[in-house]
Amino acid sequence: MRIDIKRIENRINEIGNIGKVSSGGITRFPYTDEEKKTKELIINWGNKIGLNVFEDSIGNVIFHKDGLKNNGEVILMGSHIDSVPNGGKYDGVAGIVSYLEIMEIFYENKIKTKYPLEFIIFVNEEGCRFPIGLMGSSALAGRLSKEDLYQNKDKEGLILAKEMEKHGYDPDKIMEVKYPLEKVKAYFELHIEQGGVLDTRDIPIGIVDGITGLSVLTVKIEGISGHAGAFPMEGRRDPLISATKIIQFVQKTALEYGNTARGTVGDVRVLPGGSNVIPSTVEFTIDYRDLNFGNMKNAIRKITRYSKEISSESGVQCTIDVNQLIKPVLSNDELIEEISNSAEKLEIPYMNLPSGAGHDAMIIGQFCPMAMIFIRSVGGVSHCPEEHSTSKDIGLGTKVLMDTLLKVAK
Amino acid sequence: MRIDIKRIENRINEIGNIGKVSSGGITRFPYTDEEKKTKELIINWGNKIGLNVFEDSIGNVIFHKDGLKNNGEVILMGSHIDSVPNGGKYDGVAGIVSYLEIMEIFYENKIKTKYPLEFIIFVNEEGCRFPIGLMGSSALAGRLSKEDLYQNKDKEGLILAKEMEKHGYDPDKIMEVKYPLEKVKAYFELHIEQGGVLDTRDIPIGIVDGITGLSVLTVKIEGISGHAGAFPMEGRRDPLISATKIIQFVQKTALEYGNTARGTVGDVRVLPGGSNVIPSTVEFTIDYRDLNFGNMKNAIRKITRYSKEISSESGVQCTIDVNQLIKPVLSNDELIEEISNSAEKLEIPYMNLPSGAGHDAMIIGQFCPMAMIFIRSVGGVSHCPEEHSTSKDIGLGTKVLMDTLLKVAK
Repeated sequence: MRIDIKRIENRINEIGNIGKVSSGGITRFPYTDEEKKTKELIINWGNKIGLNVFEDSIGNVIFHKDGLKNNGEVILMGSHIDSVPNGGKYDGVAGIVSYLEIMEIFYENKIKTKYPLEFIIFVNEEGCRFPIGLMGSSALAGRLSKEDLYQNKDKEGLILAKEMEKHGYDPDKIMEVKYPLEKVKAYFELHIEQGGVLDTRDIPIGIVDGITGLSVLTVKIEGISGHAGAFPMEGRRDPLISATKIIQFVQKTALEYGNTARGTVGDVRVLPGGSNVIPSTVEFTIDYRDLNFGNMKNAIRKITRYSKEISSESGVQCTIDVNQLIKPVLSNDELIEEISNSAEKLEIPYMNLPSGAGHDAMIIGQFCPMAMIFIRSVGGVSHCPEEHSTSKDIGLGTKVLMDTLLKVAK
Repeated sequence: MRIDIKRIENRINEIGNIGKVSSGGITRFPYTDEEKKTKELIINWGNKIGLNVFEDSIGNVIFHKDGLKNNGEVILMGSHIDSVPNGGKYDGVAGIVSYLEIMEIFYENKIKTKYPLEFIIFVNEEGCRFPIGLMGSSALAGRLSKEDLYQNKDKEGLILAKEMEKHGYDPDKIMEVKYPLEKVKAYFELHIEQGGVLDTRDIPIGIVDGITGLSVLTVKIEGISGHAGAFPMEGRRDPLISATKIIQFVQKTALEYGNTARGTVGDVRVLPGGSNVIPSTVEFTIDYRDLNFGNMKNAIRKITRYSKEISSESGVQCTIDVNQLIKPVLSNDELIEEISNSAEKLEIPYMNLPSGAGHDAMIIGQFCPMAMIFIRSVGGVSHCPEEHSTSKDIGLGTKVLMDTLLKVAK
């Protein structure tokens, strides 16, 4: 049973032709003609290899292959086809094409597993058009309400529920989308790494330990503005000086916790923003992640305490809001073991690593055993036209996943 | 000879009614109807007290009172009536109203000095509409060319020279504006402090040691962007971390030089600016000032060296451009002495301080003996609707200036 690397490559390119934008990348948003065309293409491929295809009332597409024992238990896989604006052609799509390849080989070789196999195209994973990412998987988990769909709007003010209706979906039936996740024996997601850990170490695939927890804080520091020339240095209450200390402390804290901890300040605004004006206010975000929830909560406490202390010493006001706090989701140990064994048997180099980015596995993994396979991202870049993973690497990941499925689905 | 504080107050309020904006402040830009109305009001006051008024071909207005000896030598004063957007009513105007008050008193008391007295309303001091501040005084010094006027545009793309023509001025005659500054025996400028040094010490007036030199640098630090979750801490080349160190070093350097040194980072941009994206680029300005030019140049050298070092250690690229480098201009020692003696004689508390902000005195002072009197700014605030100096304080400054004039102009 050989993986057809050329077929994988052709399918990625064919999908990549839909939603191409002039800046070189791909913009494929949910509830658009581009998404519809992509789904039709993939459904067509699925039909040809005897898969039952079902689209639910919000647009998740489920590809089903019966097993020998059809009592509701199932082996599930999932990924997405929506993109960020001007994104790459591998993010999400690599997974879908990999699952199709496995189904194709099973079809060609007349392989039937004990448990049925399913893979799902989750709708609106990125949350770029409608800011409600991981939407399809959240709906499967029963975590999305009708109100969410009627309140969410895109940048042009179009209401999510209305756009769904326009494309033939039924937001009022959101509760029917709920999926019996308790019956899922195992959930797998194959995805490009979107970071440079594998590429730096020259390793084609990664086995994901878990998806790190995420906390997003917004910090606002208010001081006293004034003329850069007229205001003496001694009496200044410049909020930017405190901000620089906090930004350094975020980095220091993440480095100290080490391992899977990540601390990033990515968005900073200095107001009023004149070269000859001492800032009155500095606002910035802190993105803090860790696979260890205890360490993550301690780090946030430390950063908050330090921010308050340093601000009070400098005579500026500091307000910190926790905008998001998502727990880490660990991969299932037995599934990690199965994937590792497959990779070793197939002599495919691999390493374990956490996923710092969020994935639908983050939602699904809360309800059933979950594992993810990462494919090396060339140069570690993603969410841009330069995003690239070789078909060879995707083929290796697919090979490992297929071998694992044969064991887990029996 | 009594200063009429009520008259000072009324005039400031009357001028302050022109250009009032809904946000509570004053927007009075050059080459607008608001400017024209203000000039007409002041010219009318000047005419009533026998001053000869002359408007030059770019819109500086010169108020002249003959002396006993009219050989071209003159005692000059200057200020401005243009404002920043939504500015206060004292910036610039306090000086003009003070000079008018002195001329009014000399007129009422039939006082004639040996040297003629002149005061000038300099056009476009702020440089807010057309970014060419200190324009009127630069033209008097012969430092402004026709090309400057034809190249400069406001935010709407309107060309300065064309707007001048529209208001009856003649940009082609810019060279005729040149003034024989070598014949000026002394130049005085009375201005609000725009800082909190006097107010903090509860002192009504200040005698300016000089106007600090100004250097504006732009710093660009380029690192490597990446996903905040996927990119491990160790390999990061986050330009924001280096930026925070440089920003702290700017403050540290100015504090170390102490005295008249000021270092400010007021404008910072972090790109691409997503909370979950490690910055690729950080750009910021450094505003560095000192009355001691040697110290100022050393400080800039130190900051530049440190920026390069810290960036190279962190594996990021650092580019520094010097956008502006203006030498300090010291006040004339003898004029400082005369003003100090007057203040002491009149028992008006004063202190010496540098001017961190730029003024027309910065240009004129390069060609003739210059001195400035500062009036306390309540709360140290300026360039905003809350800008305030009491009529009493302006009266005290006027009293000191008048006494000084009587000595210097004999």
